[in-house]
Order: sequence, then structure tokens, then C-alpha cells
Amino acid sequence: MKSYKVLFAPTLTETRQEAGKTILDAARELGLYIDSQCNGRGKCGRCRIRVVEGKAGPFTQEESEFISLTDKGLGYRLACMARVAGDMTVLIPEENVLSSEAAKKVFSKRSAVINPAVKAYVLEVPREEGAHIAYFERITTLLAGQYGVKDLVVDIGVLRGLAEVMKEAEDKGKATIFVWMDREIVSVRSGADDACLGLALDVGTTTVALYLCSLTDGSIVATASTTNPQVLFGTDIMSRISYSSHHPGLGVKRMQTELVHAVNALIEQMTAAIGLSPQGIMDVTVVGNTVMHHIFLGIAPDHLGLWPFSPTVQGSTDVKIREVGLTVNPASYAHVLPIEAGFVGADNVAVLLSEEPYNREGISLTIDLGTNGELVLGNRDRLFSCSCATGPALEGAHIASGMRATVGAIEKVRIDPFSFEVDYAVIGTDGWASQHAAGDLKPIGLCGSAIIDTVAELFKTGLLGQDGAFKENGGARRLRKGQTGTIEFVVAWSHESAMGKDIVLTQRDVRQIQLAKGALHGGCRVLMRRLNIDSLPRMAIAGAFGMHIDKENALAIGLFPWIEPEKMDMVGNAAGHGAYLALMNREKRAEANRIARQVTHIELALEPDFQKEFLRALSIPYKEP
Amino acid sequence: MKSYKVLFAPTLTETRQEAGKTILDAARELGLYIDSQCNGRGKCGRCRIRVVEGKAGPFTQEESEFISLTDKGLGYRLACMARVAGDMTVLIPEENVLSSEAAKKVFSKRSAVINPAVKAYVLEVPREEGAHIAYFERITTLLAGQYGVKDLVVDIGVLRGLAEVMKEAEDKGKATIFVWMDREIVSVRSGADDACLGLALDVGTTTVALYLCSLTDGSIVATASTTNPQVLFGTDIMSRISYSSHHPGLGVKRMQTELVHAVNALIEQMTAAIGLSPQGIMDVTVVGNTVMHHIFLGIAPDHLGLWPFSPTVQGSTDVKIREVGLTVNPASYAHVLPIEAGFVGADNVAVLLSEEPYNREGISLTIDLGTNGELVLGNRDRLFSCSCATGPALEGAHIASGMRATVGAIEKVRIDPFSFEVDYAVIGTDGWASQHAAGDLKPIGLCGSAIIDTVAELFKTGLLGQDGAFKENGGARRLRKGQTGTIEFVVAWSHESAMGKDIVLTQRDVRQIQLAKGALHGGCRVLMRRLNIDSLPRMAIAGAFGMHIDKENALAIGLFPWIEPEKMDMVGNAAGHGAYLALMNREKRAEANRIARQVTHIELALEPDFQKEFLRALSIPYKEP
Repeated sequence: MKSYKVLFAPTLTETRQEAGKTILDAARELGLYIDSQCNGRGKCGRCRIRVVEGKAGPFTQEESEFISLTDKGLGYRLACMARVAGDMTVLIPEENVLSSEAAKKVFSKRSAVINPAVKAYVLEVPREEGAHIAYFERITTLLAGQYGVKDLVVDIGVLRGLAEVMKEAEDKGKATIFVWMDREIVSVRSGADDACLGLALDVGTTTVALYLCSLTDGSIVATASTTNPQVLFGTDIMSRISYSSHHPGLGVKRMQTELVHAVNALIEQMTAAIGLSPQGIMDVTVVGNTVMHHIFLGIAPDHLGLWPFSPTVQGSTDVKIREVGLTVNPASYAHVLPIEAGFVGADNVAVLLSEEPYNREGISLTIDLGTNGELVLGNRDRLFSCSCATGPALEGAHIASGMRATVGAIEKVRIDPFSFEVDYAVIGTDGWASQHAAGDLKPIGLCGSAIIDTVAELFKTGLLGQDGAFKENGGARRLRKGQTGTIEFVVAWSHESAMGKDIVLTQRDVRQIQLAKGALHGGCRVLMRRLNIDSLPRMAIAGAFGMHIDKENALAIGLFPWIEPEKMDMVGNAAGHGAYLALMNREKRAEANRIARQVTHIELALEPDFQKEFLRALSIPYKEP
Repeated sequence: MKSYKVLFAPTLTETRQEAGKTILDAARELGLYIDSQCNGRGKCGRCRIRVVEGKAGPFTQEESEFISLTDKGLGYRLACMARVAGDMTVLIPEENVLSSEAAKKVFSKRSAVINPAVKAYVLEVPREEGAHIAYFERITTLLAGQYGVKDLVVDIGVLRGLAEVMKEAEDKGKATIFVWMDREIVSVRSGADDACLGLALDVGTTTVALYLCSLTDGSIVATASTTNPQVLFGTDIMSRISYSSHHPGLGVKRMQTELVHAVNALIEQMTAAIGLSPQGIMDVTVVGNTVMHHIFLGIAPDHLGLWPFSPTVQGSTDVKIREVGLTVNPASYAHVLPIEAGFVGADNVAVLLSEEPYNREGISLTIDLGTNGELVLGNRDRLFSCSCATGPALEGAHIASGMRATVGAIEKVRIDPFSFEVDYAVIGTDGWASQHAAGDLKPIGLCGSAIIDTVAELFKTGLLGQDGAFKENGGARRLRKGQTGTIEFVVAWSHESAMGKDIVLTQRDVRQIQLAKGALHGGCRVLMRRLNIDSLPRMAIAGAFGMHIDKENALAIGLFPWIEPEKMDMVGNAAGHGAYLALMNREKRAEANRIARQVTHIELALEPDFQKEFLRALSIPYKEP
């Protein structure tokens, strides 16, 4: 039997597989989790994967039930139906599309002022009796007369279809004109139909999140997220820069295209679920760190990796949709928010828009934990920012049994101080494992919060020293030498797990967490020294990670400086919320440009104190000097 | 031997040809003229044609000497080398590229004010010592500091290449920034290099003319013209509209693409001749009648052919170069001049810009003779315009031995009133045929001015009646029954002609001229009646036709109302000149929009007097009432 190379992303695990094997079986063999409620019978549609390179076997009848023609063109398949038929690269995207009532509550904490960049004007269109009056000038005359809107230009694509639409509009007696920034007509519909959607797009290094909103009332009509397919080209920003440098011109194009394809696939799912067309999306805002920002715009990020690390553009950028390839209304613009400095990008600006520390009198520390940790400390008088190389450990990546904080991940762990027995909670279920029947939970791995919990609990039980080394303890049967010879702690036994493998935390994993907290805590200390403070009045933690974290345990291991737990706010995806605010209210865009220039950026690598603080913060807990 | 269908454009002559025959031989057999100085040996490169559909035999070594790779991709071949190998459509373009000193004199009559839309700024670029300053913001800061230019945006394509260019600029200490309308950066070069070209494009129904100019000093560096390849889809504007209507979406796209390909081929030849790159062209202005205007923009002209004949847009339009596909700097804009009304388009506005009747106290009549005749009568107080359906006869089309006014065309004819013998002058040679040795001239056909001359001379000699019918006359051996049974007059015998065929003027040809002059003269009378004048103080005749016409003969047949010949100005391609003025001086663009709205358009078909005037003007000469 012939065998082929199969490379799985985002883990970049490679394997040889016999021809004819399903991708689901191949993934399971490697311990890679793919959701499959029907257990591989092509009935549930949950095991969507993307064949990014190479070809799988023929597309099946079952797959056509779940995969649209567009998505099929992009290589989407069901893992249980697609078979190995050659060398291939397979992306397992963690797709999550939500278009129910739940979506509407995503950003319920604060309502936005509704003043979008794209506004709809419903016009009375009398039938033209005289000859020779051009359609475009008829619209501008009517708009000026009925709304006082003047000096408009029109997108060339809209112009090309204008005569047809206006003929219909004459029949219906009405037309609806969509105007961007009081400046350019980006869409014309016949009849009175001012329904108008906007998309806020948060491009993370690892995860891309989408918020589909009504530009009329500000409600969230759907949300979605997926793995950033750029993980194919490296899991961190430095390897994306390197991929771009090694493939001049083409590298950035490839990464841009993959990102846009993944976003388009989600847009199609989201709009289909609510019975609308992607073309009804009239405005887009985009946030992301500096490298994601550049790649989205199709700008090679190469120079971001070379001294003096200059970005190509800092201020906000409006780019025609057809220049970036999204399937939304092609005449519209994507508004990409400004970046601050270095790698502190538009995502952090969006977090600031959401949190508004620049409007507070009291000092607050804002922490955005993604693949990098970004910090902003200050108040209305001054703000300092820095970027901490936390690495992806807090997101569960590069951790033996790590995974992202999605359904099936262990999110909480507690260890009995006497028996060393473990109890845990799994995302997607209620309560602790001990309250469930055996085999009821089926965890897949540990997400960031569970890793923090485990480290904290191991320290409290004395199984882990202040230096982060495991301590031998006769009573702890869960502490053992792993296959590679290093010590590891078993959080869940193979018979409990969905993959049939022990879920463990290794000595190496603990070291990753120490490095992450060293960088994060060290960064906080450097900023605090700038403001001459040694305690924090308020802290806001943004990012999905923060939603699951146990505050006490995070403080116990010294992930950041001590603060009273009730002064810590977990604010969720504040970057996404900021993108949403800039989508709903154009004033926020000007505000973003203003504050991006107000923040003073501290380059940690150039700070003499940082190395000392970093080393001190490696210990568990933080050792006050 | 297998045979195939070959369709030749612009004549739309179809033939069956055996495989292996050269296209040159096939054309000669049909009496179609293709220039070939080396007589089919692949040595002179003059017989460039374009295989638009189907495939010719293999590309030869000889052809690669004369045809660039890009042009090869567009189907360009040498007619003497390309062989019939299947059904095909062949365009014989009358290409004419001039990049010598002669080009510089094209518009010498009046110098333009140099105030172009695209301006170059040479910047001092100090090496950046601090980190993290974005390249775009460095440029805007330097521009504001060194020139006071502010509030700029940048084209996304420029942004994508900016980091590379600015790295080089730092090494050289200088950068040159090209800014469009004080608003948008459309190109950045490293070093001090402000050489900057512009292109004025006059898209006629039959001929496309290009003027490549220096935006720095206003000089014309090259000119070129070619057959508008849209003749493939019909020779007049109504058939182009019809082609578009019958091929929804695709029709206009096809016509737009063919036009742009032909323009790109000329741009390549023009820039190569002066050793520059098409990318150095930073600005483009475009004029054309309403249908050409719409097609250039990619707007289907369908509605221009249906009541109420509404154009899609009237005002001037700035369109990104990459949206229309020209090979000039893709970040730049093409400025398409405004149209007046109906089919009176941007070409007529350009004629007005050139002639400025709106700045004169005295009344003048401006006639632009192309495939349609466009008239503007008036002065600074008021202007009336109309469009006359002259048909293409005055351009030599749809005339038995007709051709355009290019090298090889008979341009002047005189007939001896006693012997009825003919003397003629040929474009590209000096003096009259009678002064040359026999066989020295080799005319190909009759251009418009020669047709007018022949009609006028035939009338004066009594061979043609006032009603336009040939009169039998025993002494005139040149007056004979032609093959189709109608009477014709032989201007040149087969042994004199380049094609080895008699060059004749038929009864049908005379009728075509009568219809053309009826429409043109009738239109003039309707406009004069509006102003209540019955004689003309001044007349300007624009268009290539006017450059060759004999004033007395034109007046003799009553092509337009009587005027003293010295008050008639032949102003050449005034439309092209207007496009040139709008290219060199952005103020002219605002002026064009203003005057396009000032002109009152008269729809001749709706004028009760027009039919009467038309009928009266059919007679030779015009019969004063």
C-alpha cells in the first residue's frame, strides 16, 4: 500500500499515512483532536478541516451536505470522509460560529454610540421625464435636496452597475444610498432597504475573531472565530516575518490570502445562518498586532524584524475591500486601526478604546494576553506601554497536553493536599469532575487557566519548589518519570480522557510558565517604576485566557504584581470590543489615532532593570526584593 | 488542403483561406491594404497586425525582432510571417508612433500653464536613528516640514512597497514623492528623480490618439494613434451599444479590455522609443464621446441607446489606473473629462477647452468632425450644442474606395473641366501626381478631403447634378457603369494604385456624402436660428479630417453654411489638445466641469426645423430659401 506525508497544522505534526485512510483516523492516531459527534459517519458536520496543500480523495455526498461550494473551493472537507491520496497539509481550524441570541450579549457591558462610517439614505426617486440626465448626478442632486449631503464621489464598481439599479429604483419610487464618511457612495439599492451590516475583525496571531453587527442599532447578529491559518507558516510572529523574508513578495501574499479565505469562509457561514448576503456588509474594522496588521494589508512585515524595526505605516488606514479580497461589499473600505509602536499594534489600541484608561483619573494596568502580552499602565495624564514575550504557553501552546480554551479543555484544577488526588472542570460541562459519573466528561487537554491552576496547586501541596522544580514525594503516585525521562504530573488518566491518553504537566511545561510569568511580571514592574508606584489600584485583563483564569492562583504563582482580587477585572476580548466600538462610532477612529500617539512605548529589551525583574519573577511566587 | 474562415477588421470583410497562406497574402487578395516596405520578407516590421481570435501558425524568429513579449501575448504578429492555421479574426490596426522632434510640435500653437495634478517633491531623508518610526509617517512629516504639504493619504500599492524604497532612500539621502491633487501619494522613488510623464488619451470611435507629455515642462515627448479595436464589435457607436446589450456584462468588459490592450501596446512602443518605463507615467486624462467614455470606464452603455438615453455619469470621473488596466503607474488615476449631454461627450468638452469659445465676445461655430459631427455655437454669454449623425463617410469609411487620412491616401483631387482628366495629391508625398514620374505615388484610396474634392469638382465640371446624380457625358471616359451596375467615376486607374485596382467614387458614395452634409449643414442652421443669426463670423474645424480639407470645395458643395474662407480655422485634433490642457493644468479640469454644464444641448431629432433644413442641405450646393 502506498503511503504519503501528511502535515497537520496548527501543531505542525507530520506523519506518514497509508493511502485511503481518513484524515480523522490519521489525526486520532497522532493524538490530535478533531470534534466528531457522530463518530466519523459524516452525519454531524463537526469535523470540518481544510486541505491546504495536496489533494484528498474524492468529495463525497455526505460532505456536500455540510460544505458550501465556495468552501469546497478553498479545500474544506469533512475529516471523516476525506481520505489520504497524496502528500498533503491539513489545517484543523477551531471554527466556532454563533448566530443565536447568545451572540447579541457578547459586548453587552457598555452600549456604543451609533454613528457609523457608512450611513444609509432612503431617497424618493421621481420618474425622470426629461432626457439625458445622468444617474449619478440625479442621485447627488436628490441627496443634496432631501438630506443636504453634498460633494460626493462614487466607487467605480457602483458606477458600473448604477444604470440598472436606478431603472429599478424609478419603478419602485425609492432608492437607498450608502455613503462612506460623508464622502463616497459605496452601494446603491433600489427601494427603501437600509438594512446594513458591519464586521469587526480581530486578527490574532493564533485566533481570528469576527463580530457581525447591525450598523443601524449596534446589535451583534453573529460572532465567529477560527484558527488563523497563518499558523501554517509558523506559530509566532517572528516565524511569519521570517517566512515573508524568505519568500519575497509571495510570502506575504500567501499569508494574506489564507487569512482572507478563512475570514470569508466564516462570513459565509455567519451570513447564511441569518439569511443575508455577505454583500450586505458595508463596513469593516480590523485590529491586530503590528505583524498581523501589516499582513492583512498585504505589506511584507520583513522590516519589522530588522533594526530599527520600522513599521510601514502607523496611523489608521482605509483600504478598499477589493484590494484585500474580502467577500463583503467590494466598494466599501476596511478601516485598519492605528498601531502604537513596534509590535504593540492595533489590537492594543482597540483594548484602550474599550477600557479608556486615558479617560480615568486613577491609574490602571491593562494587560492583553494573547500570544504576546501587552501592557499599558497609566491614567489620563500619561500612559506607558510595553510588549512582553510571554510566548504561547499561557494559551496552551507548546505545552505537552496543552490546548486552547475551547470545549473539552480542562479549565480548572485542584489538588488534594493530602492524597494529591486531582479534581478538574471541563469547558462545556458544569461543575467538577468529582460530581460527574465516570467517563462523563472526556477532557482533551489543559488550557492556560488549568495550567496556572496546576502549577499553583502543585506549589501549595509542596510538590513543586519555589524554583519550579518538581519534588519527589513518595505519596504522589501521579508524579512520575515520563517517557522522555523528565518528571511529569498526571492531571487526568488515559481512561478519563477523550484521546485515551494521560493528560500531564511536565517539568518542561512548568519552565515555560515560569518564563511567561517572568516576562509578564517583569514588564509590569518596569512600567510601575516609570510611574513610581509599587502597588496597583486597578487591573484589567483582556483576552480569552483571562475569562477562565482563577485570580487567586494567578496571584499565588506571581503571574503579575499583587493586587486585591476584587480590583482585577476580567474584560474578555477587549480588542474585539474596541474594533466593534470603532465600527459603530466613527468618532472612535479619530480617538484611536489620538491615543495611539499619546502612549509612550517602552522597549523592554533596552531597559536596564528588565533583566533583573525578569529573573526575580521566575520564582514561585514572586520574591519581593 | 484545409481552409478556414478569416475575418478582417476594421472592414469586417470575411473570406475563406487555405491553411498555410500568410495573412498578408490573404489581405491583399481581398484588396485590404497592409503596409509592407520589404514586400513580405519579415525585414521591415511594418505589417504588424493583431490576431484577436483564433490562432495563426507558429511565431517566427523574424517576428521576435519586431514584436515585444507583451505584444506577442496580445496577439500581435507580422502579417507576412503569420499563417492561417484555423478560423480567425485579424485586426489591421493603423498604428502610428511618433517619438521624434516632430512630436514636440503637435500642440505648439498655444503653450499650456504647467500646473499638473501630480506633483513631484524631492525630500531630504536623514538616516533614522530612533527606532519604530513608520515609513509613511516619516514621509508625511518630512513633506510637511520641507514643503508644507499636509493631510496626505497613500495608495495601498505604494504602501506595500514603501519599506524597500525608503531603505534605499536613506542610503541615497533623498526620496522623490509624487502627490496627486495635494491629496494622495501615488509613487515614491529613492533618490532625487522627479522626471514625470503624463498621457492624454483621445478615444475616438474609429481612432485612438495618445499624447505622451512631460508633466515638468509640458513638452510632448511622443504621439501615437491606432485603430480603436472596438471596430471588431461594430464601426459606429450604435452597434457598440448593441453589442453590449446583447452580451450583458461581458460585452462592455470585452470592448474595454480590447481598447486598453491597444493603448498599452502603444504606450510600450512610445516609452521604449524614449528609453523610459510605462510606470513613469503618473497621470492620464481621457476624452471621448459618451459611449467611448462609458466603455473606457467599464460602464455598459446600454441605457444610452434607450429612452430617455441617460448616461450613468456626467461630471468628470477620477478612476484608479488599476481599475481600468492601463500599464502606467497603477496607483495613479485616469481623469476622464465630463460629458455634455447625450452623445456629446468629453471629446467635445475638450474641444471647447482648446478653443475657448466661452471666453470670446464674438460668436463662433466649433465643428468637431469625427465619426459623428459635433457642433457648438455661441460666445461667452451662451453656448448651444448639437450632435449630427454624419456617419463615417467623411472619414472615408463605407465608401467604395474610401480610407482614413493616412499615408497613401489621396487627399486632394482636381478635374480638368474640358478633358475630365484627374490630378491628385497623396499623403506622404509632395505636390500633384502630374509632377511625379508614373508609378511614383501608388495611392491606396480616397480619404474624406479627396471625396469632398471629387464631389465638388464633378459638380463644377457638370458631371454631377444639383441633386447629386451623375450625368451621362460622352466625353468622360472615366464615368462608367461599375460592376454592380451603378455609375462610378474613376479617380485613379488600377495601374497607378498600390492595390492594382481602380480607385473610384460611386453614385452610392455621393449619396453618403449628401446625407453627411445634410445632417451637418442642417445642424448648423438649427443652432444659428437659436441665436437668430444667418451668417457666421468665425468657424473652427477640429478633427484630422479638417487638416486635409480644401475650404473652397467644402464651401462649394455646402458642407456647412457659407463663411469667408479666411474666417475658417482648421484646428487639428482639438479634442486631443483639450485632453493635453487638462493633463498639464488641473485648473482646466474644474473649467471643463463648469463649461460642460453651461452648454445648452439641442436634440436635433426633436427640433421641428431640422428635417426641413436637412432636406434643403442635401442639394449641391446648399439652396438658400
